[in-house]
Amino acid sequence: MIDVASQIREMATRARQAARAMASAPPAPKRDALLRLAQALTDSWSEVAEANRADLEEAAAAGLSRAKLDRLRLDERTRDDLVEGLRQVAHMPDPVGEIESLSVRPNGLRVGRMRVPLGVIGMVYEARPGATVEASSLAVKAGNAILLRGGKEALRSNRTLVELFRRSLKQTGLPEDAVQLVPHTDRQAVVEMCRLVGYLDVLIPRGGEELIRFVQEHARMPVLAHARGVNHLYVDEGADLEMAVRIAVNAKAQRPATCNALEKVLVHQTVAPDLLPLLARAMAEARVELRGCARTREHLPHIRPATEADWEAEYLDLVLAVKVVDSMDEALAHIARYGSNHTEAIVTRDHARALRFLREVDASLVLVNASTRFNDGFQLGLGAEIGISTSKLHAYGPMGVRELTTTKFVALGDGQVRT
Amino acid sequence: MIDVASQIREMATRARQAARAMASAPPAPKRDALLRLAQALTDSWSEVAEANRADLEEAAAAGLSRAKLDRLRLDERTRDDLVEGLRQVAHMPDPVGEIESLSVRPNGLRVGRMRVPLGVIGMVYEARPGATVEASSLAVKAGNAILLRGGKEALRSNRTLVELFRRSLKQTGLPEDAVQLVPHTDRQAVVEMCRLVGYLDVLIPRGGEELIRFVQEHARMPVLAHARGVNHLYVDEGADLEMAVRIAVNAKAQRPATCNALEKVLVHQTVAPDLLPLLARAMAEARVELRGCARTREHLPHIRPATEADWEAEYLDLVLAVKVVDSMDEALAHIARYGSNHTEAIVTRDHARALRFLREVDASLVLVNASTRFNDGFQLGLGAEIGISTSKLHAYGPMGVRELTTTKFVALGDGQVRT
Repeated sequence: MIDVASQIREMATRARQAARAMASAPPAPKRDALLRLAQALTDSWSEVAEANRADLEEAAAAGLSRAKLDRLRLDERTRDDLVEGLRQVAHMPDPVGEIESLSVRPNGLRVGRMRVPLGVIGMVYEARPGATVEASSLAVKAGNAILLRGGKEALRSNRTLVELFRRSLKQTGLPEDAVQLVPHTDRQAVVEMCRLVGYLDVLIPRGGEELIRFVQEHARMPVLAHARGVNHLYVDEGADLEMAVRIAVNAKAQRPATCNALEKVLVHQTVAPDLLPLLARAMAEARVELRGCARTREHLPHIRPATEADWEAEYLDLVLAVKVVDSMDEALAHIARYGSNHTEAIVTRDHARALRFLREVDASLVLVNASTRFNDGFQLGLGAEIGISTSKLHAYGPMGVRELTTTKFVALGDGQVRT
Repeated sequence: MIDVASQIREMATRARQAARAMASAPPAPKRDALLRLAQALTDSWSEVAEANRADLEEAAAAGLSRAKLDRLRLDERTRDDLVEGLRQVAHMPDPVGEIESLSVRPNGLRVGRMRVPLGVIGMVYEARPGATVEASSLAVKAGNAILLRGGKEALRSNRTLVELFRRSLKQTGLPEDAVQLVPHTDRQAVVEMCRLVGYLDVLIPRGGEELIRFVQEHARMPVLAHARGVNHLYVDEGADLEMAVRIAVNAKAQRPATCNALEKVLVHQTVAPDLLPLLARAMAEARVELRGCARTREHLPHIRPATEADWEAEYLDLVLAVKVVDSMDEALAHIARYGSNHTEAIVTRDHARALRFLREVDASLVLVNASTRFNDGFQLGLGAEIGISTSKLHAYGPMGVRELTTTKFVALGDGQVRT
């Protein structure tokens, strides 16, 4: 019998050693390892595809849902996206060693902050094997080591991808153990990851609410996690109504099961009479079911009434709740009460109200006149993301290379002592 | 009987409401509230002094140690330091609303990061009542609310200081509940603070190791805490030996009980014969006991041998362990193994080795040719500090105004949707 706990601890020890070497690695080999992996994915895709086929067959036989099989599948489009993402991350500026403004203290001491890697990152995730490459490439670019514990269904795919990554690291003279995959996919492996205080500097859970809550409860090191996305679009007095409808349909229907999908629309009373019929027509075409407050139903009497549970719900489905508000103040209060600090948007033509919304709404991404679907590392220009954080400490929003670093203080003196 | 749990929860609810108002407060009233408090401390010092006298009498009667009574005492020098600190923090630039570089995505979406308050800060601390003013002023400047649970001995002093602060907030039109003191000083109050998930965005424990560990174990929200300071000074080949001795004596003896005091000296073998006698003489004058490795004792045969426990110890006393190393590599490996990521320093004349030490040593402050005693928010130019973090997430090193904020993403569009 394999002792899971000691095996994982042994891997974590090797990750720590690798992290020390990674932290002092210059930019070139880190960049080259990512470019080599991009090339390897292109050249050796048949290996990956074969492993993925075996995973898919087993998952299908086990009766996995269509949606889950889709997430598990690595097709050529996924490959092209991964290769493109790797190249983008490879060519981003290396953040490690960067010193923000060195200021001079009255005693002549020069004080600055130097950007440094976090150390060892743990990630516990489900299904989508593309995340293996995205997370590892960000970790490596930022000079970290990463210990991955992926889902059961993707084990063969993940193993093959990690093997290719480790080969690329080795070929560029970096420690292979900077990227390791835990071979155990049961819950005990998650428990053991949660216990690795002193080995992991941060633990990132990605997956369903249940997994995330489990990690938050059990982890003894800092956790970066995302909560639900109960996301609102507020359509302001005087807004461009066609723009509002276009954004609402995109935000709701383009991929309704994602955490950045729209769940509620708040409508200023002055635009309700004109907006609501337009919105209802467009949503019907997109097969979205509307539910409304009493004032919404004055204009759209055929829709189902929205209850308290609707204002709290993250549907992740083609359902949208609509509420008419008296004022922007009421919209802001509603968002403060029911929002989940994920993604919030306003459609407005008014400059002062746009700025007020940006300032006062507390969410990881606040948008003016754009779709909530942009809350994504790639879309916001981070190259890729290792997840979206909805807690405020360390990272708030999509986490890219910079979020996998920290800053330490540095001070340059010529003999200063304290008096 | 008072229900401690529901009373604290009620205070936290008011803190959350206050935090929403604080988050959208413009810079002027926040600055003015701090300046008013500075004035109030000057004008109404007799109130504070009287409360402090009562605390001191009770503590003396209860047999508190001399050192603890000293920490509890608020004299006129403390007052002047607090007033000066308040003025400095008041006049620092307001970080809230600052947007870092707005970049334009290919679709025309403008994406940036806006600095925003954390929300509600919880602080659990012992003894020193000056911390009440320092922590609250940083929290207010950064647009947060703070819920304080201070030590039993300082209850009257803390209550008076918080009362003055709340009056200053009220006079400038800010919510008084942005600064609140929990009136319970027993352990149960700490437990209740640890349970305030959804109310407190972060919990900061300050005090002895036991309190910090208790909070880390029990808190269900992010914790920012400091660990021990097992701090080293590495004296490099070719270093200025007089500078090395001056720095070592200051770092060790100026205030040996602080977490940024020096605990170990690592000496390059080439400078050991000249440095060690100088160091021994200076430390003897400063009444510091030396302990040494075998090679150190070849030069200083009269000192006590250092054991494994010495390399691990945080003495917080007039004791210093000394080790001769073959090379800078050995010094770096020793620091990586025994250091506690707090404060590490090198004395060197060599530019490349200075930069290598800065880059490779993993500590919240890394110094070249200066005393470890500079690891302090005031000394590093933050105005004041709410504590020193030795974990890497969010803050690493002294935490000032900026560390009590985070950034959210903002995106400005003109109708962008995802394709």
